[in-house]
Amino acid sequence: DRPLALIAGPCQLESRQHALEMSRALKEVCARAGVGLVYKTSFDKANRTSLGAQRGLGLADSLPIFAEIRESLGIPVLTDVHAPEQCAPVAEAVDVLQIPAFLCRQTDLLVAAAATGAAVNVKKGQFLAPWDMKNVVDKIRGSGNDRILQTERGVSFGYNTLVSDMRALPIMARDSGVPVIFDATHSVQQPGGQGGSSGGQREFVEALARAAVAIGVAGVFVEVHQDPDKAPSDGPNMVPLKAFPALLETLVEFDRLAKARPFRLA
Amino acid sequence: DRPLALIAGPCQLESRQHALEMSRALKEVCARAGVGLVYKTSFDKANRTSLGAQRGLGLADSLPIFAEIRESLGIPVLTDVHAPEQCAPVAEAVDVLQIPAFLCRQTDLLVAAAATGAAVNVKKGQFLAPWDMKNVVDKIRGSGNDRILQTERGVSFGYNTLVSDMRALPIMARDSGVPVIFDATHSVQQPGGQGGSSGGQREFVEALARAAVAIGVAGVFVEVHQDPDKAPSDGPNMVPLKAFPALLETLVEFDRLAKARPFRLA
Amino acid sequence: DRPLALIAGPCQLESRQHALEMSRALKEVCARAGVGLVYKTSFDKANRTSLGAQRGLGLADSLPIFAEIRESLGIPVLTDVHAPEQCAPVAEAVDVLQIPAFLCRQTDLLVAAAATGAAVNVKKGQFLAPWDMKNVVDKIRGSGNDRILQTERGVSFGYNTLVSDMRALPIMARDSGVPVIFDATHSVQQPGGQGGSSGGQREFVEALARAAVAIGVAGVFVEVHQDPDKAPSDGPNMVPLKAFPALLETLVEFDRLAKARPFRLA
Amino acid sequence: DRPLALIAGPCQLESRQHALEMSRALKEVCARAGVGLVYKTSFDKANRTSLGAQRGLGLADSLPIFAEIRESLGIPVLTDVHAPEQCAPVAEAVDVLQIPAFLCRQTDLLVAAAATGAAVNVKKGQFLAPWDMKNVVDKIRGSGNDRILQTERGVSFGYNTLVSDMRALPIMARDSGVPVIFDATHSVQQPGGQGGSSGGQREFVEALARAAVAIGVAGVFVEVHQDPDKAPSDGPNMVPLKAFPALLETLVEFDRLAKARPFRLA
Repeated sequence: DRPLALIAGPCQLESRQHALEMSRALKEVCARAGVGLVYKTSFDKANRTSLGAQRGLGLADSLPIFAEIRESLGIPVLTDVHAPEQCAPVAEAVDVLQIPAFLCRQTDLLVAAAATGAAVNVKKGQFLAPWDMKNVVDKIRGSGNDRILQTERGVSFGYNTLVSDMRALPIMARDSGVPVIFDATHSVQQPGGQGGSSGGQREFVEALARAAVAIGVAGVFVEVHQDPDKAPSDGPNMVPLKAFPALLETLVEFDRLAKARPFRLA
Repeated sequence: DRPLALIAGPCQLESRQHALEMSRALKEVCARAGVGLVYKTSFDKANRTSLGAQRGLGLADSLPIFAEIRESLGIPVLTDVHAPEQCAPVAEAVDVLQIPAFLCRQTDLLVAAAATGAAVNVKKGQFLAPWDMKNVVDKIRGSGNDRILQTERGVSFGYNTLVSDMRALPIMARDSGVPVIFDATHSVQQPGGQGGSSGGQREFVEALARAAVAIGVAGVFVEVHQDPDKAPSDGPNMVPLKAFPALLETLVEFDRLAKARPFRLA
Repeated sequence: DRPLALIAGPCQLESRQHALEMSRALKEVCARAGVGLVYKTSFDKANRTSLGAQRGLGLADSLPIFAEIRESLGIPVLTDVHAPEQCAPVAEAVDVLQIPAFLCRQTDLLVAAAATGAAVNVKKGQFLAPWDMKNVVDKIRGSGNDRILQTERGVSFGYNTLVSDMRALPIMARDSGVPVIFDATHSVQQPGGQGGSSGGQREFVEALARAAVAIGVAGVFVEVHQDPDKAPSDGPNMVPLKAFPALLETLVEFDRLAKARPFRLA
Repeated sequence: DRPLALIAGPCQLESRQHALEMSRALKEVCARAGVGLVYKTSFDKANRTSLGAQRGLGLADSLPIFAEIRESLGIPVLTDVHAPEQCAPVAEAVDVLQIPAFLCRQTDLLVAAAATGAAVNVKKGQFLAPWDMKNVVDKIRGSGNDRILQTERGVSFGYNTLVSDMRALPIMARDSGVPVIFDATHSVQQPGGQGGSSGGQREFVEALARAAVAIGVAGVFVEVHQDPDKAPSDGPNMVPLKAFPALLETLVEFDRLAKARPFRLA
């Protein structure tokens, strides 16, 4: 049971300048807390609520920036892929390919991501039971790649609402033997909750993250932004950068206790 | 308020022979009932529960068969697409491109389907509120295509279960002004309900279809198979071909009454 | 398969005058439509959202009014009971004792209601699966009373929202062999949805009632008021009296068709 | 922020002997852990799934046993009440009156419990949103009693399943200013899940309790039995007595950390 890792970063890759600043700031905070950091950012928001919403820098412009962060800061980079043909080029520039929740059942995407040999972090669909993630993980493993992470990010609960079923964490760990990440910022999303965009409940990020860490997870996924209310996407659920160090410190303490008294399903 | 249309066919395109037999049989039944038929079948099941599950004939082998059915029988053909680059070639051979429910938020796929000029039937995601379909429809319309259908197929309700919220039908019709189809066979799916594959409750297809037609829909979507229990996918929720004529006759009578007394939200 | 019956009336017994007017008006509408009427009204709203909300006339003042309606108009009367000791006196004045949804598992109440020999209409709890109603019905039947009705009124779906799972209707009919009523006005309630009181979506009453009747039910339950927006409770989901005749006429036509083509689960 | 308290005991009061043994054993375990104990046990299981299920010793036989435990062991006793007239006599023998979840909206019961002056622990209905508990608490407070506890025990999630929405804990605390208890054993119930009785998932009790304590609660409610599989009710979700000390020790450590770093909603 290794100590908590963190997947963190702003939702979108907004610009080279922004990415370098955010990644440097997060690296510093995580180093001070003694926590391993994977820097997360998206080159394309492929499933925005509305057609006119800002999608990001795009693949071609983003790859050099990913590579620059990775090399200059010496931290692993994660980004999400949306189509099989993106997997190989993206895997050149980043360390972890992430499969979005809506796409977690798309066999071709899983197989293409697996084939790169990069680590794959697959998010659990909002429509999926925890025990169904075994089939998803098996698609990746069955394609010859064992470097797999799986991420819980809430399940549909009525309309425009997600709920975090904390039982999912030990179920997913037991069923597939693959490390489990808790995505504390998408779990508080309110999908479609603002009509033309998604809402969010940033005020619950810490509560849910504490809960997940107390049960025991390999890592926490948190989207962070220096000014969430001005972010082009996911603002309502991102954590402000200045609140991040205290949050991290708290989680590290709970993680220490949780790993000292591990909980596991038989 | 035009009379009920039907989108029907077996889940998978199993072989040229099977497709020709099924489409002929369905055409005959629909003609006898005086109902317009769109023949549905899939060239690729891209999101099977398990990696090893049978996926279908594939794009290249299926297109000539789609074209043959369309020309020899004179009926429109519908199939689902999973990637933007499939849209243009598939639109050469079929009349309606269908967007799968899991993919209903993937902007690039919606835009590519819209760009073909073919009619687009977009399924409502299992994770989506009825009022959120307006944003989905607007992505297609905003790409210059007004030939749009939208299909209700159930919403997540706990684990491995869908529920059909009948309020969704008039909400979707009112909000986007686009014809609403009720998918009576996927609405009774039990996603992941059999461990390595999805279960289904064929016995409720008629009940839900009667309900939807009584409220008033443009069409009903029903997967039909001559021997569902031997079908390579979706067997548990498909309707046996020999039960189909009586089902259709019943729905036509309810539709006549529903259209004579139309229900509309203000 | 007997023709549709109706359980209708205002939520609360507001006054003798109001009750006599409403029951007369409803009797007339139902007679014109050829539909049997059970007049429904409550002497006590025992589970209002807030302490200060108006609860009704109370038991002692209501019983003579129930008796007067029953005798002067010659129609059966239904009211709900909340405690075992209310059952015997109430059964003197009314024909049907109704068990509220929240109380459908309270054994003593079910047994006391059964013991009166009056007909018992038990509402399905918002927290109950359709197949669990068999146990509820069996408590009444096991107490020696076979005059039982069961009523579907929606199931919890996220927060402050109910959904009507239409599969419940044939499941309940099959499992217990007892007539099924669809409560079209409480099914569109939004429990607690207005902070200090419940909201409702009156605009969906007809849609859900059409759906239920098309599947096939013994009766429909509708709360009706001459001026719902001024009613002391359940205003947002009651049907205005002047809209009631057209609604009833539509339901009768769907019922005729549904009974001519009965749907039953094996 | 006072240290964690515990409400614990077997589901049913099975016999005087059993109650004395269980309460003594629990008192000892809690004393060793330095945790305040409220002994919980029921004199009547008033809402069993089936008519034939064992209901308990009954009111008259139980009151002297409650009083004996309270006096001989010097620990507060809690039991649930189901009817207004039970409140006064029960309050003579116990310290805390508990309102069952199904009954949390029954105004007369809340008012009668409040009127005794005893502390009242009200369980949140499985059909209730967290913010709706304020209205429930206000019914008790508005009746002149400020000694109130509120308990989260899961919310309906599809059929025969509950989910613990951990956001409920801080919402309930903020909205009503009343201490929040997390019921870790009823939260893992599967209502009606075994046909004629409820199932349960004892293996998740610790996970959910850790999560709740990490967020911060006033207390945890746990049903404990020396041999759960032979218990007359709730066996599938009760914690075996011999597993209880280790569970408690873990929770105490998480509580210490949680109270040192309190989480509160603004």
